Amino acid sequence: MAMVLYELCGIDEELRFSPYCWRVRYALAHKGLTAETRPWYFTDKEALAFSGSDKVPVLVDGDQAIADSYEILRYLDRSYPEAPLLGDGMAESRARFFKHYAERSLAPAMLRTIIMDLLNAIHPKDRDYFRETREKRFGRALEEFHSPAKGLAQLDAALEPLRGQLKESDFIDGAAPAAADYLVFGSFMWARVVSSADLVSNADPVYGWLERMLDLHDGLGRSAMRVTDVEGAYR
Amino acid sequence: MAMVLYELCGIDEELRFSPYCWRVRYALAHKGLTAETRPWYFTDKEALAFSGSDKVPVLVDGDQAIADSYEILRYLDRSYPEAPLLGDGMAESRARFFKHYAERSLAPAMLRTIIMDLLNAIHPKDRDYFRETREKRFGRALEEFHSPAKGLAQLDAALEPLRGQLKESDFIDGAAPAAADYLVFGSFMWARVVSSADLVSNADPVYGWLERMLDLHDGLGRSAMRVTDVEGAYR
Repeated sequence: MAMVLYELCGIDEELRFSPYCWRVRYALAHKGLTAETRPWYFTDKEALAFSGSDKVPVLVDGDQAIADSYEILRYLDRSYPEAPLLGDGMAESRARFFKHYAERSLAPAMLRTIIMDLLNAIHPKDRDYFRETREKRFGRALEEFHSPAKGLAQLDAALEPLRGQLKESDFIDGAAPAAADYLVFGSFMWARVVSSADLVSNADPVYGWLERMLDLHDGLGRSAMRVTDVEGAYR
Repeated sequence: MAMVLYELCGIDEELRFSPYCWRVRYALAHKGLTAETRPWYFTDKEALAFSGSDKVPVLVDGDQAIADSYEILRYLDRSYPEAPLLGDGMAESRARFFKHYAERSLAPAMLRTIIMDLLNAIHPKDRDYFRETREKRFGRALEEFHSPAKGLAQLDAALEPLRGQLKESDFIDGAAPAAADYLVFGSFMWARVVSSADLVSNADPVYGWLERMLDLHDGLGRSAMRVTDVEGAYR
């Protein structure tokens, strides 16, 4: 039985922008696995009730349902040990840091730049939910939170260690990509799918890595639908 | 023959503040190795000529001289494979990120806070050298670069991923410390030895980790001389 991956989608059912879902897409491709994807919307909470989670990604493999991108990577390493993603022991502990680096350093910086583009890419039926939950989290209106100048300066600072790493090797995980690359790259796919903002200059060592990541697994990221491909998206 | 470690020292020969030397001290202790330490000053360039480096740490082990803290950790893993520090493959590549995180995110933020304390802890004969090289690097006088308000705000942001990691495990490397912990902690020892500035509040998950790191290896870090222990240090 084919695996099933529940994925967040936006104004177009093929517009898939969740950074967490992108981690899983790359992880599956890394293992040579395929999953049938099922579109999901922020407000479809009941559609995931079977999994015990109210958020995507949820991966269904036979009689198992696994939620949370990091847990899915762990599950894939346990169940399909060829081509390790996280690895074991120190390798796994260190991989976990990249999850936090992506979620706590990079994504918040990107979000200040792309939030209005993100709102625009979200399905209209989800927008009230998105605005309400995010405005509560940020303590202000999305329009006030939006600040490309602050976001880009914050991102520039947050990228410093990644620059150092990518001056020395093609991928975070060395000569070939693995979980650390996917955990971080998910956030860049999120921004790429919803926005045409240039987050990284082409003189940056991170830029070359982004290009390599887009090309991986037969151009998995590069071929993904972006909001700029959607008829009638209002920009 | 005992190993020899050349270490930077300050106004007191026992005042050892180099973050890179602290990485090596912890790495040696991790392996159960000991080294005789030799004091070195910034301006003693010729004392290291034999090693091909003009900076500490330099570790001499038999007929080998290894410079650069990360290279020393690699050397120790190759020559004394028990109790791995960096590990191999993905584990090693990921460890390298922590070197960049410490050097490019944490240390620059700390430096804005502690630079005048650092100058004061440096041996008088090294101070002109230090001021000249750093003012050239920063493009301004040390007194202008010094900004605890900016430094602490920058550090607060830079610590975010580390907070996430340390909420989930006692050490960066999991249940027990290894190279990722030592690579990062070196910068905290640097600040601790030269300054009494509080960089991390005791409500921060990073604080508990710092306490654990200070206690490791029979209190290696906690028992180190600090500038506040030096008679006649002018604060």
